[in-house]
Amino acid sequence: MPAPLAFYFDFISPYGYFASLRIDELAARHGRAVDWRPMLLGVAVLKVMGLKPLLDTPLKGDYIRQDVRRQARRLGIRLGRDLHASVGNPLPPARAFYWVKQHQPQLAVPLAHALFHAFWAEGRDLSTPEAVAGIELPAGLDADALAAGAASDEAATLLRTAVAASIQAGIFGSPTVVVDDEPFWGADRLRDVDEWLACGGW
Amino acid sequence: MPAPLAFYFDFISPYGYFASLRIDELAARHGRAVDWRPMLLGVAVLKVMGLKPLLDTPLKGDYIRQDVRRQARRLGIRLGRDLHASVGNPLPPARAFYWVKQHQPQLAVPLAHALFHAFWAEGRDLSTPEAVAGIELPAGLDADALAAGAASDEAATLLRTAVAASIQAGIFGSPTVVVDDEPFWGADRLRDVDEWLACGGW
Repeated sequence: MPAPLAFYFDFISPYGYFASLRIDELAARHGRAVDWRPMLLGVAVLKVMGLKPLLDTPLKGDYIRQDVRRQARRLGIRLGRDLHASVGNPLPPARAFYWVKQHQPQLAVPLAHALFHAFWAEGRDLSTPEAVAGIELPAGLDADALAAGAASDEAATLLRTAVAASIQAGIFGSPTVVVDDEPFWGADRLRDVDEWLACGGW
Repeated sequence: MPAPLAFYFDFISPYGYFASLRIDELAARHGRAVDWRPMLLGVAVLKVMGLKPLLDTPLKGDYIRQDVRRQARRLGIRLGRDLHASVGNPLPPARAFYWVKQHQPQLAVPLAHALFHAFWAEGRDLSTPEAVAGIELPAGLDADALAAGAASDEAATLLRTAVAASIQAGIFGSPTVVVDDEPFWGADRLRDVDEWLACGGW
Protein backbone atom coordinates (compact mmCIF):
# COMPACT_ATOMS: atom_id res chain seq x y z
CA MET A 1 0.00 0.00 0.00
CA PRO A 2 1.65 3.31 -1.01
CA ALA A 3 1.73 6.05 1.62
CA PRO A 4 -1.09 8.58 1.75
CA LEU A 5 -0.44 12.06 0.39
CA ALA A 6 0.01 14.59 3.18
CA PHE A 7 -2.25 17.56 2.47
CA TYR A 8 -1.32 20.62 4.55
CA PHE A 9 -3.62 23.64 4.52
CA ASP A 10 -5.05 26.46 6.57
CA PHE A 11 -8.82 26.99 6.55
CA ILE A 12 -8.25 30.72 6.02
CA SER A 13 -6.31 30.07 2.79
CA PRO A 14 -8.32 30.45 -0.43
CA TYR A 15 -5.81 28.32 -2.32
CA GLY A 16 -6.17 25.70 0.40
CA TYR A 17 -9.91 25.75 -0.28
CA PHE A 18 -9.41 25.32 -4.02
CA ALA A 19 -7.08 22.37 -3.43
CA SER A 20 -9.46 20.80 -0.90
CA LEU A 21 -12.05 20.41 -3.65
CA ARG A 22 -9.76 18.31 -5.83
CA ILE A 23 -7.18 16.54 -3.71
CA ASP A 24 -9.13 13.41 -2.78
CA GLU A 25 -10.21 12.73 -6.37
CA LEU A 26 -6.67 13.34 -7.64
CA ALA A 27 -5.14 10.99 -5.06
CA ALA A 28 -7.76 8.30 -5.65
CA ARG A 29 -6.97 8.21 -9.36
CA HIS A 30 -3.48 7.10 -8.36
CA GLY A 31 -4.61 4.67 -5.67
CA ARG A 32 -3.59 6.99 -2.85
CA ALA A 33 -5.36 8.13 0.28
CA VAL A 34 -4.98 11.67 1.65
CA ASP A 35 -3.96 12.62 5.17
CA TRP A 36 -5.54 16.03 5.82
CA ARG A 37 -3.35 18.18 8.07
CA PRO A 38 -4.50 21.68 8.96
CA MET A 39 -1.58 23.99 9.76
CA LEU A 40 -1.42 27.64 10.75
CA LEU A 41 -0.11 30.25 8.34
CA GLY A 42 0.05 32.60 11.32
CA VAL A 43 2.79 30.42 12.82
CA ALA A 44 4.63 29.48 9.61
CA VAL A 45 4.49 32.83 7.80
CA LEU A 46 4.41 35.37 10.60
CA LYS A 47 6.46 33.70 13.33
CA VAL A 48 8.87 31.31 11.62
CA MET A 49 9.39 33.08 8.30
CA GLY A 50 8.98 36.59 9.72
CA LEU A 51 6.78 37.80 6.86
CA LYS A 52 3.54 39.76 6.71
CA PRO A 53 0.16 38.17 6.04
CA LEU A 54 -0.14 37.61 2.31
CA LEU A 55 -3.14 39.88 1.77
CA ASP A 56 -1.53 42.69 3.78
CA THR A 57 1.63 42.65 1.65
CA PRO A 58 1.95 45.66 -0.67
CA LEU A 59 1.44 44.84 -4.38
CA LYS A 60 1.07 41.12 -3.68
CA GLY A 61 -2.14 41.53 -1.68
CA ASP A 62 -3.91 43.19 -4.63
CA TYR A 63 -2.63 40.58 -7.04
CA ILE A 64 -3.70 37.70 -4.81
CA ARG A 65 -7.23 39.11 -4.47
CA GLN A 66 -7.48 39.38 -8.25
CA ASP A 67 -6.00 35.92 -8.76
CA VAL A 68 -8.27 34.27 -6.19
CA ARG A 69 -11.35 35.70 -7.93
CA ARG A 70 -9.97 34.59 -11.30
CA GLN A 71 -9.23 31.05 -10.09
CA ALA A 72 -12.69 30.84 -8.52
CA ARG A 73 -14.33 31.85 -11.82
CA ARG A 74 -12.32 29.27 -13.65
CA LEU A 75 -13.20 26.49 -11.20
CA GLY A 76 -16.85 27.56 -11.16
CA ILE A 77 -16.74 28.33 -7.45
CA ARG A 78 -18.84 31.05 -5.87
CA LEU A 79 -16.85 32.98 -3.26
CA GLY A 80 -19.09 34.36 -0.55
CA ARG A 81 -16.35 36.29 1.21
CA ASP A 82 -15.10 39.83 0.97
CA LEU A 83 -11.38 39.34 0.35
CA HIS A 84 -10.67 42.58 2.20
CA ALA A 85 -12.44 41.37 5.35
CA SER A 86 -10.52 40.03 8.34
CA VAL A 87 -10.11 36.28 8.29
CA GLY A 88 -10.74 36.20 12.03
CA ASN A 89 -9.23 33.70 14.43
CA PRO A 90 -7.99 30.61 12.56
CA LEU A 91 -7.63 28.45 15.69
CA PRO A 92 -11.20 27.21 16.34
CA PRO A 93 -11.74 25.46 12.97
CA ALA A 94 -8.30 23.85 13.08
CA ARG A 95 -8.79 22.73 16.69
CA ALA A 96 -12.24 21.36 15.84
CA PHE A 97 -10.74 19.35 13.01
CA TYR A 98 -8.08 17.69 15.16
CA TRP A 99 -10.55 17.04 17.96
CA VAL A 100 -12.88 15.25 15.53
CA LYS A 101 -9.97 13.42 13.95
CA GLN A 102 -9.13 12.11 17.43
CA HIS A 103 -12.66 11.08 18.41
CA GLN A 104 -14.61 10.44 15.20
CA PRO A 105 -11.85 10.12 12.58
CA GLN A 106 -14.16 9.14 9.74
CA LEU A 107 -15.89 12.53 10.11
CA ALA A 108 -12.75 14.69 10.05
CA VAL A 109 -12.55 15.16 6.28
CA PRO A 110 -16.31 15.76 5.90
CA LEU A 111 -15.94 18.40 8.64
CA ALA A 112 -13.00 19.99 6.80
CA HIS A 113 -15.11 20.28 3.65
CA ALA A 114 -17.96 21.77 5.66
CA LEU A 115 -15.63 24.30 7.31
CA PHE A 116 -14.08 25.35 4.00
CA HIS A 117 -17.53 25.69 2.44
CA ALA A 118 -18.89 27.72 5.36
CA PHE A 119 -15.90 30.05 5.35
CA TRP A 120 -15.30 30.54 1.62
CA ALA A 121 -18.61 29.87 -0.11
CA GLU A 122 -20.91 31.21 2.59
CA GLY A 123 -18.56 33.82 4.05
CA ARG A 124 -19.29 32.73 7.62
CA ASP A 125 -17.16 33.66 10.58
CA LEU A 126 -15.42 30.70 12.25
CA SER A 127 -13.67 32.66 14.96
CA THR A 128 -15.18 30.87 17.96
CA PRO A 129 -15.97 27.27 18.89
CA GLU A 130 -19.68 28.21 18.85
CA ALA A 131 -19.40 29.66 15.34
CA VAL A 132 -17.66 26.49 14.17
CA ALA A 133 -20.39 24.34 15.73
CA GLY A 134 -23.04 26.53 14.11
CA ILE A 135 -22.25 25.61 10.51
CA GLU A 136 -24.03 22.85 8.64
CA LEU A 137 -22.26 19.84 10.14
CA PRO A 138 -21.78 16.38 8.62
CA ALA A 139 -24.33 13.85 9.84
CA GLY A 140 -23.14 12.23 13.04
CA LEU A 141 -21.39 15.26 14.51
CA ASP A 142 -23.08 16.76 17.53
CA ALA A 143 -22.90 20.56 17.61
CA ASP A 144 -22.66 20.93 21.38
CA ALA A 145 -20.00 18.26 21.67
CA LEU A 146 -18.07 19.88 18.82
CA ALA A 147 -18.21 23.33 20.43
CA ALA A 148 -16.93 21.88 23.70
CA GLY A 149 -14.32 19.83 21.88
CA ALA A 150 -13.02 22.78 19.88
CA ALA A 151 -12.71 24.78 23.12
CA SER A 152 -10.94 21.97 25.01
CA ASP A 153 -7.34 21.86 26.14
CA GLU A 154 -7.09 18.56 24.32
CA ALA A 155 -7.90 20.22 20.98
CA ALA A 156 -5.43 23.02 21.66
CA THR A 157 -2.70 20.46 22.37
CA LEU A 158 -3.53 18.38 19.31
CA LEU A 159 -3.32 21.45 17.07
CA ARG A 160 -0.12 22.69 18.72
CA THR A 161 1.51 19.31 18.15
CA ALA A 162 0.34 19.16 14.53
CA VAL A 163 1.56 22.68 13.78
CA ALA A 164 4.96 21.99 15.34
CA ALA A 165 5.21 18.84 13.21
CA SER A 166 4.32 20.82 10.07
CA ILE A 167 7.07 23.35 10.77
CA GLN A 168 9.46 20.51 11.49
CA ALA A 169 8.53 19.05 8.10
CA GLY A 170 9.41 22.38 6.45
CA ILE A 171 5.81 23.26 5.53
CA PHE A 172 5.30 27.00 5.14
CA GLY A 173 2.43 27.49 2.71
CA SER A 174 -1.15 26.46 2.07
CA PRO A 175 -1.76 24.20 0.30
CA THR A 176 1.29 21.96 0.36
CA VAL A 177 0.99 18.37 -0.80
CA VAL A 178 3.76 15.95 0.12
CA VAL A 179 4.04 12.92 -2.15
CA ASP A 180 6.29 10.43 -0.41
CA ASP A 181 9.13 12.87 0.45
CA GLU A 182 8.45 15.38 -2.29
CA PRO A 183 6.69 18.63 -1.28
CA PHE A 184 4.61 20.67 -3.74
CA TRP A 185 3.51 24.10 -2.61
CA GLY A 186 0.59 25.92 -4.21
CA ALA A 187 -2.81 25.04 -5.64
CA ASP A 188 -1.38 25.53 -9.13
CA ARG A 189 1.04 22.66 -8.45
CA LEU A 190 -1.67 20.03 -8.18
CA ARG A 191 -1.02 19.35 -11.86
CA ASP A 192 2.60 18.63 -10.95
CA VAL A 193 1.44 16.29 -8.17
CA ASP A 194 -0.75 14.53 -10.70
CA GLU A 195 2.10 14.12 -13.18
CA TRP A 196 4.54 13.08 -10.44
CA LEU A 197 2.16 10.35 -9.29
CA ALA A 198 1.54 9.26 -12.87
CA CYS A 199 5.20 8.89 -13.84
CA GLY A 200 6.88 8.24 -10.49
CA GLY A 201 8.80 11.50 -10.46
CA TRP A 202 11.53 13.09 -12.53
CA MET B 1 -2.63 43.93 -34.07
CA PRO B 2 -3.13 42.70 -30.48
CA ALA B 3 -0.86 44.19 -27.81
CA PRO B 4 2.42 42.44 -26.98
CA LEU B 5 2.59 40.46 -23.76
CA ALA B 6 4.57 42.29 -21.10
CA PHE B 7 7.16 39.91 -19.67
CA TYR B 8 8.64 41.15 -16.39
CA PHE B 9 11.59 39.32 -14.88
CA ASP B 10 14.81 39.70 -12.95
CA PHE B 11 17.96 38.06 -14.32
CA ILE B 12 18.72 36.69 -10.85
CA SER B 13 15.38 34.83 -10.73
CA PRO B 14 15.53 31.13 -11.67
CA TYR B 15 11.82 31.10 -12.45
CA GLY B 16 12.40 34.12 -14.68
CA TYR B 17 15.01 32.06 -16.51
CA PHE B 18 12.65 29.13 -16.95
CA ALA B 19 9.95 31.43 -18.34
CA SER B 20 12.43 33.19 -20.65
CA LEU B 21 12.98 29.90 -22.48
CA ARG B 22 9.31 29.52 -23.37
CA ILE B 23 7.62 32.92 -23.48
CA ASP B 24 8.37 33.91 -27.09
CA GLU B 25 7.21 30.57 -28.49
CA LEU B 26 4.08 30.65 -26.35
CA ALA B 27 3.20 34.19 -27.43
CA ALA B 28 3.93 33.48 -31.09
CA ARG B 29 1.46 30.58 -31.10
CA HIS B 30 -1.21 33.15 -30.29
CA GLY B 31 0.04 35.79 -32.72
CA ARG B 32 1.50 37.93 -29.97
CA ALA B 33 4.85 39.63 -29.57
CA VAL B 34 6.60 39.90 -26.20
CA ASP B 35 7.87 43.08 -24.58
CA TRP B 36 10.76 42.00 -22.33
CA ARG B 37 10.98 44.16 -19.21
CA PRO B 38 13.68 43.43 -16.64
CA MET B 39 12.68 44.58 -13.15
CA LEU B 40 14.46 44.39 -9.81
CA LEU B 41 13.29 42.02 -7.11
CA GLY B 42 15.52 43.97 -4.74
CA VAL B 43 13.26 46.99 -5.18
CA ALA B 44 9.90 45.20 -5.37
CA VAL B 45 10.43 42.56 -2.67
CA LEU B 46 12.84 44.20 -0.27
CA LYS B 47 11.92 47.88 -0.49
CA VAL B 48 8.27 48.05 -1.55
CA MET B 49 6.95 44.83 -0.03
CA GLY B 50 9.31 44.84 2.95
CA LEU B 51 10.13 41.13 2.68
CA LYS B 52 13.36 39.16 2.80
CA PRO B 53 15.06 37.74 -0.29
CA LEU B 54 13.25 34.54 -1.23
CA LEU B 55 16.22 32.22 -0.76
CA ASP B 56 17.01 33.76 2.63
CA THR B 57 13.50 33.15 3.96
CA PRO B 58 13.31 30.34 6.53
CA LEU B 59 11.59 27.16 5.27
CA LYS B 60 10.76 28.75 1.91
CA GLY B 61 14.40 29.10 0.89
CA ASP B 62 15.00 25.36 1.21
CA TYR B 63 11.81 24.54 -0.65
CA ILE B 64 12.61 26.93 -3.48
CA ARG B 65 16.08 25.44 -3.94
CA GLN B 66 14.55 21.96 -4.13
CA ASP B 67 11.81 23.14 -6.48
CA VAL B 68 14.18 24.98 -8.80
CA ARG B 69 16.30 21.84 -9.20
CA ARG B 70 13.16 19.77 -9.77
CA GLN B 71 11.79 22.18 -12.39
CA ALA B 72 15.16 22.26 -14.12
CA ARG B 73 15.25 18.45 -14.31
CA ARG B 74 11.78 18.40 -15.75
CA LEU B 75 12.58 21.03 -18.36
CA GLY B 76 15.86 19.33 -19.21
CA ILE B 77 17.88 22.37 -18.19
CA ARG B 78 21.34 22.11 -16.71
CA LEU B 79 21.81 24.57 -13.85
CA GLY B 80 25.42 25.64 -13.50
CA ARG B 81 24.89 27.66 -10.34
CA ASP B 82 25.17 26.88 -6.67
CA LEU B 83 21.76 27.95 -5.34
CA HIS B 84 23.37 28.85 -2.03
CA ALA B 85 25.82 31.27 -3.67
CA SER B 86 25.25 35.02 -3.64
CA VAL B 87 23.43 36.27 -6.73
CA GLY B 88 25.70 39.29 -6.79
CA ASN B 89 24.72 42.73 -8.02
CA PRO B 90 21.63 42.52 -10.26
CA LEU B 91 22.03 46.03 -11.70
CA PRO B 92 24.66 45.58 -14.47
CA PRO B 93 22.76 42.97 -16.54
CA ALA B 94 19.49 44.89 -16.26
CA ARG B 95 21.19 48.17 -17.17
CA ALA B 96 22.95 46.50 -20.10
CA PHE B 97 19.60 45.22 -21.36
CA TYR B 98 17.93 48.64 -21.33
CA TRP B 99 20.96 50.31 -22.87
CA VAL B 100 20.91 47.84 -25.76
CA LYS B 101 17.15 48.15 -26.07
CA GLN B 102 17.68 51.89 -26.51
CA HIS B 103 20.51 51.69 -29.03
CA GLN B 104 20.23 48.31 -30.82
CA PRO B 105 16.70 47.22 -29.96
CA GLN B 106 16.74 44.15 -32.19
CA LEU B 107 19.59 42.76 -30.03
CA ALA B 108 17.93 43.28 -26.64
CA VAL B 109 16.14 39.94 -26.46
CA PRO B 110 19.12 37.96 -27.77
CA LEU B 111 21.20 39.69 -25.09
CA ALA B 112 18.62 38.76 -22.43
CA HIS B 113 18.86 35.10 -23.46
CA ALA B 114 22.64 35.29 -23.38
CA LEU B 115 22.61 36.88 -19.92
CA PHE B 116 20.20 34.29 -18.52
CA HIS B 117 22.27 31.48 -20.03
CA ALA B 118 25.54 32.87 -18.68
CA PHE B 119 24.11 33.33 -15.20
CA TRP B 120 22.03 30.16 -14.80
CA ALA B 121 23.51 27.57 -17.14
CA GLU B 122 27.15 28.62 -16.84
CA GLY B 123 27.04 30.03 -13.32
CA ARG B 124 28.91 33.16 -14.32
CA ASP B 125 29.04 36.30 -12.23
CA LEU B 126 27.34 39.32 -13.83
CA SER B 127 28.04 41.78 -11.05
CA THR B 128 29.99 44.34 -13.07
CA PRO B 129 29.66 45.92 -16.52
CA GLU B 130 32.90 44.17 -17.49
CA ALA B 131 31.55 40.78 -16.40
CA VAL B 132 28.38 41.40 -18.43
CA ALA B 133 30.43 42.33 -21.47
CA GLY B 134 32.57 39.23 -21.00
CA ILE B 135 29.85 36.68 -21.73
CA GLU B 136 29.26 35.20 -25.14
CA LEU B 137 27.42 38.10 -26.77
CA PRO B 138 24.97 38.00 -29.68
CA ALA B 139 26.56 38.84 -33.00
CA GLY B 140 26.57 42.60 -33.57
CA LEU B 141 27.08 43.62 -29.96
CA ASP B 142 30.46 45.15 -29.22
CA ALA B 143 31.83 44.13 -25.84
CA ASP B 144 33.64 47.40 -25.08
CA ALA B 145 30.64 49.49 -26.07
CA LEU B 146 28.39 47.28 -23.97
CA ALA B 147 30.62 47.58 -20.90
CA ALA B 148 30.64 51.36 -21.26
CA GLY B 149 26.90 51.42 -21.94
CA ALA B 150 26.07 49.27 -18.90
CA ALA B 151 28.17 51.62 -16.74
CA SER B 152 26.62 54.80 -18.16
CA ASP B 153 24.30 57.23 -16.41
CA GLU B 154 21.94 56.74 -19.31
CA ALA B 155 21.60 53.01 -18.56
CA ALA B 156 21.09 53.73 -14.86
CA THR B 157 18.32 56.18 -15.70
CA LEU B 158 16.67 53.82 -18.17
CA LEU B 159 16.59 51.03 -15.58
CA ARG B 160 15.39 53.33 -12.81
CA THR B 161 12.51 54.49 -15.01
CA ALA B 162 11.60 50.93 -16.00
CA VAL B 163 11.66 49.68 -12.42
CA ALA B 164 9.50 52.57 -11.24
CA ALA B 165 7.04 51.77 -14.03
CA SER B 166 6.98 48.09 -13.01
CA ILE B 167 6.17 49.00 -9.41
CA GLN B 168 3.52 51.44 -10.66
CA ALA B 169 2.04 48.55 -12.67
CA GLY B 170 1.85 46.46 -9.49
CA ILE B 171 4.56 44.00 -10.54
CA PHE B 172 6.23 42.33 -7.56
CA GLY B 173 7.48 38.94 -8.75
CA SER B 174 9.59 37.30 -11.44
CA PRO B 175 8.31 36.21 -13.84
CA THR B 176 5.09 38.12 -14.31
CA VAL B 177 3.34 38.07 -17.67
CA VAL B 178 0.68 40.68 -18.35
CA VAL B 179 -1.82 39.72 -21.05
CA ASP B 180 -3.72 42.87 -21.96
CA ASP B 181 -4.57 43.99 -18.40
CA GLU B 182 -4.36 40.58 -16.76
CA PRO B 183 -1.23 39.79 -14.73
CA PHE B 184 -0.02 36.23 -14.16
CA TRP B 185 2.74 35.75 -11.60
CA GLY B 186 4.96 32.68 -11.59
CA ALA B 187 6.58 30.39 -14.13
CA ASP B 188 3.97 27.76 -13.30
CA ARG B 189 1.29 30.15 -14.55
CA LEU B 190 2.51 30.11 -18.15
CA ARG B 191 -0.05 27.37 -18.72
CA ASP B 192 -2.72 29.78 -17.51
CA VAL B 193 -1.38 32.46 -19.87
CA ASP B 194 -1.58 29.93 -22.68
CA GLU B 195 -5.18 29.01 -21.86
CA TRP B 196 -6.16 32.65 -21.36
CA LEU B 197 -4.81 33.55 -24.78
CA ALA B 198 -6.50 30.52 -26.34
CA CYS B 199 -9.97 31.21 -24.97
CA GLY B 200 -9.91 34.96 -24.43
CA GLY B 201 -10.13 34.76 -20.66
CA TRP B 202 -12.65 33.55 -18.14
